[in-house]
Amino acid sequence: MTVGLPGLGGSGEVVGVVAELVGVTVFALSGGLVAARRGMDLFGAVVLALVAGLGGGTIRDVLLGAVPPTNLSNAWALGCAAAAGVVAFYADLGLARFRRAVLVLDAGGLGLFTVSGAVTALALGAPALAAVLLGLVTGIGGGVLRDLLSGQVPVVLQDDIYALPSLAGSVAVVVLWQVGAFSATAGVVVAGAVFTVRLLARRRR
Amino acid sequence: MTVGLPGLGGSGEVVGVVAELVGVTVFALSGGLVAARRGMDLFGAVVLALVAGLGGGTIRDVLLGAVPPTNLSNAWALGCAAAAGVVAFYADLGLARFRRAVLVLDAGGLGLFTVSGAVTALALGAPALAAVLLGLVTGIGGGVLRDLLSGQVPVVLQDDIYALPSLAGSVAVVVLWQVGAFSATAGVVVAGAVFTVRLLARRRR
Amino acid sequence: MTVGLPGLGGSGEVVGVVAELVGVTVFALSGGLVAARRGMDLFGAVVLALVAGLGGGTIRDVLLGAVPPTNLSNAWALGCAAAAGVVAFYADLGLARFRRAVLVLDAGGLGLFTVSGAVTALALGAPALAAVLLGLVTGIGGGVLRDLLSGQVPVVLQDDIYALPSLAGSVAVVVLWQVGAFSATAGVVVAGAVFTVRLLARRRR
Repeated sequence: MTVGLPGLGGSGEVVGVVAELVGVTVFALSGGLVAARRGMDLFGAVVLALVAGLGGGTIRDVLLGAVPPTNLSNAWALGCAAAAGVVAFYADLGLARFRRAVLVLDAGGLGLFTVSGAVTALALGAPALAAVLLGLVTGIGGGVLRDLLSGQVPVVLQDDIYALPSLAGSVAVVVLWQVGAFSATAGVVVAGAVFTVRLLARRRR
Repeated sequence: MTVGLPGLGGSGEVVGVVAELVGVTVFALSGGLVAARRGMDLFGAVVLALVAGLGGGTIRDVLLGAVPPTNLSNAWALGCAAAAGVVAFYADLGLARFRRAVLVLDAGGLGLFTVSGAVTALALGAPALAAVLLGLVTGIGGGVLRDLLSGQVPVVLQDDIYALPSLAGSVAVVVLWQVGAFSATAGVVVAGAVFTVRLLARRRR
Repeated sequence: MTVGLPGLGGSGEVVGVVAELVGVTVFALSGGLVAARRGMDLFGAVVLALVAGLGGGTIRDVLLGAVPPTNLSNAWALGCAAAAGVVAFYADLGLARFRRAVLVLDAGGLGLFTVSGAVTALALGAPALAAVLLGLVTGIGGGVLRDLLSGQVPVVLQDDIYALPSLAGSVAVVVLWQVGAFSATAGVVVAGAVFTVRLLARRRR
């Protein structure tokens, strides 16, 4: 199985692969930043980056029976996640910039993995309702594992506008797919919309 | 795959479906109550209700290779869990009634999912010993995830008479199945016995 | 599927089975000790011993699609893990000896499960990179679950020389396997090397 948006073919496949790697990288950066902030060392930062970056996709693949999970044998995904952990560890942001960075990175991963989860489920023949749930679980999975392992209550349980944009994005992907209107471009637009809504909701406060 | 007690057919199947939905609902109510008590908002309560209500069955299905997990494409299960989260969020119980409610709901889910886990494993051809373990893991799984995500040490590790009635119930189901004496009625009786033992053990204190 | 080092046959198979049981037992002992230290009762200690002893192998099998996980239907593994929980509960060590015991037991499990994870992945046809990751995840999995459930940040995130020896051992197994030089003896040597490096790194402090 290839990483990304299966079933789109050609340039859609390329967009999917790039989107997955961007998603892995931004979630991994958030993991590395959290690790550094909580006083972990470089190795802890790399491990938490791997967990955050690869966690959502791994949960997605296990729930769909696509084992071993694709990202675990994808040198690009592993390399991006590990490198992100190193970069984040040495980033040395102040508290305010740390919080903003994690918020933005996490929102990016949320959007990209929501789309990735729903599309992968649909491409593997899952029912529509399961695909919606898979989008949600894949989108929030990496952040939940990151927060759990670093001893925090997951952000999805603390923040009202987190699961909701992911759920809406997942529904949008499934509806577009069902009516035959899904494309790589549509996927990027949905991911961007989830990202934007998540950020706007936080800013408004 | 249908939800519930596979391999029973006819009215047994109906009992199984209803039992699974009751189990999902009571565990979901416990999740929503815990979320509200810990100061989460409505969305957090719904997410924790989904995790508690669907977690045990999802672990069961992943361990048995029945993917995507049945409850993730079951509109009734999802609807019951989400509705339970909303209801629990607005229940507004005092601390004493909150504790009692979570205890009773959790015990109900423990009994029903213990039976559901063991029966599903047997129906899918798992060895007897694996079926016993699956009953235990399915019974305690939703509560473990609920407690972990809300930042608590799981009740199964804190309370002596929790894993034990689940284990005994799971053994009872497997033995009844092996001697050909399992039925929907027997399943309900075992679930009720697990529920009762769990509550009596707590009351005694 | 049998437990241990599949694909080796004959005496290699025996070594694999024994190594797996030793790994289960030492991780389970660490789980039971942690439970007792944190004030859990006997049942909590047995449950945490089962989680620590069987967790890594269960994650390994789920990620490889070998379900139901082998250890869940292995009476020896279950018996060793449960017995280890009881023994650890009554061990009554002082704080210093408790810390040393958990360190040594955990390092032993880390080494043995790193090898077990990589070998099982290779024997089931996983790509080399996935096998490396599976060795790491299997090696650290039991300890991560033990720490998470007992309300601690996992040791792998706290301690620099933990993931690294596991990763190196996993790479060694995969390289040896690829050049056709892997054997049961080689597996034991690699596990011993992971164990030794982990302990030396801690002592140095």
